[in-house]
Amino acid sequence: MEEALKKHEEWQGKIEIISRAPIQSKEDLSLAYTPGVARPCLEIQKDEDQSFSLTRRANLVAVVTDGTAVLGLGDIGPAAAMPVMEGKCALFKTFGDVDAFPICIDSKDVDEIVRTVSLISKSFGGINLEDIAAPRCFEIEKRLKECCDVPVFHDDQHGTAIIVAAALLNAMKLTGREMGSAQIVINGAGAAGIAIARLLWQMHFGDIILCDKQGAIYRGAEWTNPAQKEMAELTNRENKKGSLADMLKDADVFIGVSAPNIVSREMISSMAEKSIVFPMANPTPEIMPEEAKAGGAYVIGTGRSDFPNQINNVMAFPGIFKGVLRVRARDISESMKIAAAYAIAGIVSDEELEPCYILPNPFNERVADAVADAVAKDAVENGLARVK
Amino acid sequence: MEEALKKHEEWQGKIEIISRAPIQSKEDLSLAYTPGVARPCLEIQKDEDQSFSLTRRANLVAVVTDGTAVLGLGDIGPAAAMPVMEGKCALFKTFGDVDAFPICIDSKDVDEIVRTVSLISKSFGGINLEDIAAPRCFEIEKRLKECCDVPVFHDDQHGTAIIVAAALLNAMKLTGREMGSAQIVINGAGAAGIAIARLLWQMHFGDIILCDKQGAIYRGAEWTNPAQKEMAELTNRENKKGSLADMLKDADVFIGVSAPNIVSREMISSMAEKSIVFPMANPTPEIMPEEAKAGGAYVIGTGRSDFPNQINNVMAFPGIFKGVLRVRARDISESMKIAAAYAIAGIVSDEELEPCYILPNPFNERVADAVADAVAKDAVENGLARVK
Repeated sequence: MEEALKKHEEWQGKIEIISRAPIQSKEDLSLAYTPGVARPCLEIQKDEDQSFSLTRRANLVAVVTDGTAVLGLGDIGPAAAMPVMEGKCALFKTFGDVDAFPICIDSKDVDEIVRTVSLISKSFGGINLEDIAAPRCFEIEKRLKECCDVPVFHDDQHGTAIIVAAALLNAMKLTGREMGSAQIVINGAGAAGIAIARLLWQMHFGDIILCDKQGAIYRGAEWTNPAQKEMAELTNRENKKGSLADMLKDADVFIGVSAPNIVSREMISSMAEKSIVFPMANPTPEIMPEEAKAGGAYVIGTGRSDFPNQINNVMAFPGIFKGVLRVRARDISESMKIAAAYAIAGIVSDEELEPCYILPNPFNERVADAVADAVAKDAVENGLARVK
Repeated sequence: MEEALKKHEEWQGKIEIISRAPIQSKEDLSLAYTPGVARPCLEIQKDEDQSFSLTRRANLVAVVTDGTAVLGLGDIGPAAAMPVMEGKCALFKTFGDVDAFPICIDSKDVDEIVRTVSLISKSFGGINLEDIAAPRCFEIEKRLKECCDVPVFHDDQHGTAIIVAAALLNAMKLTGREMGSAQIVINGAGAAGIAIARLLWQMHFGDIILCDKQGAIYRGAEWTNPAQKEMAELTNRENKKGSLADMLKDADVFIGVSAPNIVSREMISSMAEKSIVFPMANPTPEIMPEEAKAGGAYVIGTGRSDFPNQINNVMAFPGIFKGVLRVRARDISESMKIAAAYAIAGIVSDEELEPCYILPNPFNERVADAVADAVAKDAVENGLARVK
């Protein structure tokens, strides 16, 4: 950690803004600035869509936070959140060649956050929401999607859901399970857990039971919040009640986005044969991989880079926005997310697939382009693209 | 102009955001992003000033507009203003090695603009306001200066004033005039004209008469706006009334920030010997240089690059913010502006000084550093610097 601090002192910021226009002479100045610049201004005034080709909106995403749910650090505020947001921007550029700029908003008021982003949204080709606490994040995303004419994407929800779906697609294939047949238990019914449940439901993986601290979420539970009540309508077909341990009995899949060390070896042993176990709490998973393996888990994936099968959304967001920007999409639809999940899963061929290799390496350069191609194609097919 | 459009299509934006942190391996990821990034986050949470060394705030300026007074194009809106703002950002980087990011706000409401900038101001080391219409620009700047803890600088006012002051310092020297002795007429009592008048008054150049379409501004004039009334208290010692032509009789200096072709050769001829004439309306000056010369003007400067003595604020703002960022200044004070003007003027030595050479070439690489040094020194001396 000291090394990381030293590096940050050295870098003085992890992003840098450079000029793409050479300005070495009076002639250069008159093209890039006055008087020549008046010409592209007037083009955009006539047709605002021209901003996608005449300005950096062509390749630019805003990474927006209020600093309320930063990593495992919680509500540390907009200034302290900046190193994470700059890091995210550096990942956008490194993995997707997408320009990204951090916007850290010094407010926790939903109206104010929505208004601020909306007022500057015409400078960007997309909006990536980041590390905003639930339930505020749901309303902010919903309202921004309504008022902005560019895609709005809360990565903690949807990026995570997409990469989990990609991992699960390959794990299902590897364990000989058919789509629709899986009994899936997700622990942690916050923003990420709900987004994962929703995407897996839309992809028809099987029956899903979403658990929170009080156990399985069921229709009629009085302690659930509105987002959880909504999910109760889509999940838990038999409306089971009980603890996480109860739900894991005979389950095929465990997905954890909750807290460290809350799943025991015995709970894993109670699952079905060839179980799929994704304990993704960071940095300490719900159960350590060796423990899960000892309990009989067949495929194990975590959020960590020091174990096999890192479930890391750096494989999702750069390619998604790269695809979005290529076709100037107006939104990121459910079918675009599903296309992204299949594209990521598809990088690992049937021959390569094994319990320790269900996802590509995050540094595999084919990932972002495969995702971008799939997302752009889906946007065009479904009428969400401004260009083809 | 077609060439400029073609170039803009090629560039797809005149700025680009790159990563300063190498991310080629899992180890790199763990330093620049999770888990290592938590360390600088916590440092900033403890002490917000650390954001100036651990994030790009170290070298980052926001270029903010509402798109209401863009070049000579007027109120073209925030999307159409973007090519100008990107151009400004490219100039910041090229001339001052300062990172700048354009923020185009889709609102004309002062409260909303102030609130938006204030909410994101902690990500930046300075705020450069640009192309905001008067009188709104005065209130926005005043209120932002109050609520932001980083410098706020409306370049159309103060950048212009600084470079005019620099030009006038050298022109006074060249024509043997002593500071305090000059009779100065400024035509155009909008944002730029008022800022020029105020700075020249603070620098004690002499008596100033500010004119607008209705002629000289005097104490008691009923047609003046509040900003003009304020200036009437500082200028026009003898409280003269009359037209621009009346005021120019025997004047030493004419400064135009008004409209094309409104000054005649005869008006110039009526001025004092060795007159100093800066007709800066763009692209067509108040009087063309050859006409002014024919009328007897001794030193002539315009805003154009195709005549000698281009009075271009690209010599001011990059160095000013470079100096500000170096010492993490809290504000840009009047004395910092004056220091900048003297620094720019000082680049031209007494031996080099001649009627066609009162200002350095904008591409002279010594300018930005000289300005930065002077501004940083003044900030430190006057207690406006966070570091020394």
